[in-house]
Amino acid sequence: MNAVERLQRLFLQSLEAGFGEPEWNRQPDSLYAPQRYILGMGGKRLRPVLSLMAAEALGAKAERALPAAHAVERFHNFSLIHDDIMDEAPVRRGKPTVHTQWGLNTAILSGDALLVMAYESLRTLPAESLPQALKVFNRTALEVCEGQQWDMEFETQDQVHEGQYLQMIRYKTSVLLGCALELGAASVSAPSDVASALYAFGLELGTSFQIHDDILDAFGNPEEVGKQVGGDIRSNKKTLLYLHLMEQAPDLLTAWTEDRSDAKVEAVKAAMVEYGSLAHVEEKRRFHFSLATEALAVAEAKGCQTADLQALAQWIFHRTA
Amino acid sequence: MNAVERLQRLFLQSLEAGFGEPEWNRQPDSLYAPQRYILGMGGKRLRPVLSLMAAEALGAKAERALPAAHAVERFHNFSLIHDDIMDEAPVRRGKPTVHTQWGLNTAILSGDALLVMAYESLRTLPAESLPQALKVFNRTALEVCEGQQWDMEFETQDQVHEGQYLQMIRYKTSVLLGCALELGAASVSAPSDVASALYAFGLELGTSFQIHDDILDAFGNPEEVGKQVGGDIRSNKKTLLYLHLMEQAPDLLTAWTEDRSDAKVEAVKAAMVEYGSLAHVEEKRRFHFSLATEALAVAEAKGCQTADLQALAQWIFHRTA
Repeated sequence: MNAVERLQRLFLQSLEAGFGEPEWNRQPDSLYAPQRYILGMGGKRLRPVLSLMAAEALGAKAERALPAAHAVERFHNFSLIHDDIMDEAPVRRGKPTVHTQWGLNTAILSGDALLVMAYESLRTLPAESLPQALKVFNRTALEVCEGQQWDMEFETQDQVHEGQYLQMIRYKTSVLLGCALELGAASVSAPSDVASALYAFGLELGTSFQIHDDILDAFGNPEEVGKQVGGDIRSNKKTLLYLHLMEQAPDLLTAWTEDRSDAKVEAVKAAMVEYGSLAHVEEKRRFHFSLATEALAVAEAKGCQTADLQALAQWIFHRTA
Repeated sequence: MNAVERLQRLFLQSLEAGFGEPEWNRQPDSLYAPQRYILGMGGKRLRPVLSLMAAEALGAKAERALPAAHAVERFHNFSLIHDDIMDEAPVRRGKPTVHTQWGLNTAILSGDALLVMAYESLRTLPAESLPQALKVFNRTALEVCEGQQWDMEFETQDQVHEGQYLQMIRYKTSVLLGCALELGAASVSAPSDVASALYAFGLELGTSFQIHDDILDAFGNPEEVGKQVGGDIRSNKKTLLYLHLMEQAPDLLTAWTEDRSDAKVEAVKAAMVEYGSLAHVEEKRRFHFSLATEALAVAEAKGCQTADLQALAQWIFHRTA
């Protein structure tokens, strides 16, 4: 069993044990059932694993970072409940989304409560870590909200620059990976320069990860990705690939705007290769990954044991799904 | 100028000065403008005034409780943004509600961000007060969510008991008044028994206040209340008055269910007098006010200067609007 699986298991055991505690059995259950439902849905548990791994990288027991791990996982799931409302998403991981299952009002309110539950987990950190942890967490939480707001605004905005898009995905996704690591480090009272290096590692790894997502949505192997590819192309989603091609060949994309056919997907993908969009975006992915690697080297030079984090990064870099 | 006005002014000056700070001028402005809008709407500022007054009652400068004051006011306004969505309320204080002005998605998201901003204000408390402040704040925040969920469930529930209703209003409203006082006390490192006594004062004063609201909605003087009375009666809202009358004369209320006329309001009010509902609820109001007074006496015995809090309580008890 590798470190990721071991830490996933540790987190899941703690999650399920928690569901038996009074904290998760308050009334009205209609407020807490949706929270347990989304937290129990599964997934890679990347964020809590990062928190736990940061503690181990600093030579401490992973268990000491469990409050941080739960805080970031709760925050992540709070944001999923509310994002699914905003995106009108009916399904998540093959199950009805919270607002589909319980209605809009309970979805808003159980999301709110889950955000509070994130802070309640954070509160159980050692008192000396709390001010700094709260600072990082609040900044990250606001950035995630800002990223989501930018994302919604870009949908109706004619022109989006690559730099704006990158900032949006960094805020919407990457900062929380950095935060997971930094809070894990703060949980074991790591020096601030080590915590910052781990934050930078998570931020850049997350950015590389999100860019990879865009590439896989268009160029992934459907059998490996597990879903039909080309969804972003069909819906004219302003991904990095789209933004690059829009600069190189605007007429081509505009001609296909109203279309949602397989022919469109094939034609746009071919153009993304021909006009260098794929190569450009792949280069961006590698660039941010290299920044992640550099940040990890900084952490290592300051005494971090980075083998597991390196392995995790390699796994993320080479994923095909 | 009495203490309430002086502390209202202190809070408003701090609020407006804050709007000029970087914290309130982040991008995208579309996320922060709704927050400034609702925070700037006015109102009695009862919660922040209570925080500031608690600090003064402990012989400290009110300014030291400003982080607590902003935290509770931000939390209160976060809950107003989301409650207005759930209640489909178009107007608040004569202005469009946030979701009416900016749409559902931005209202959800700016509410979320305002909740984070509440924690960001809390974070600036002295480090030694932070763990306890966070504990009180989180507990209160969850109770407010639970109160709102109960309130929504009671709407479609056939039978609601008086005890359930009282717990609902205590959670939805009163606990935040208690929290405002306790956080104000914690801001100046008050002993925990004093902070608890002030919490109890706020909790009971808030309960008395909410019961008073129900009474004024039916029996207030329209010229003083500033709006048509009887709204709760017209909409069959399950207030304490309604619940009592429903026990005493269920057929009478049932007969009027579909009606929204002035005749209904007059008939139901007459029945509420005749069957003792008004007297019963008035007695409840006085009972919780007496508990508030007792809690304040405990705080006073422990060295609190309670004159301003007593005056505030008297003003609330005798209000006609």
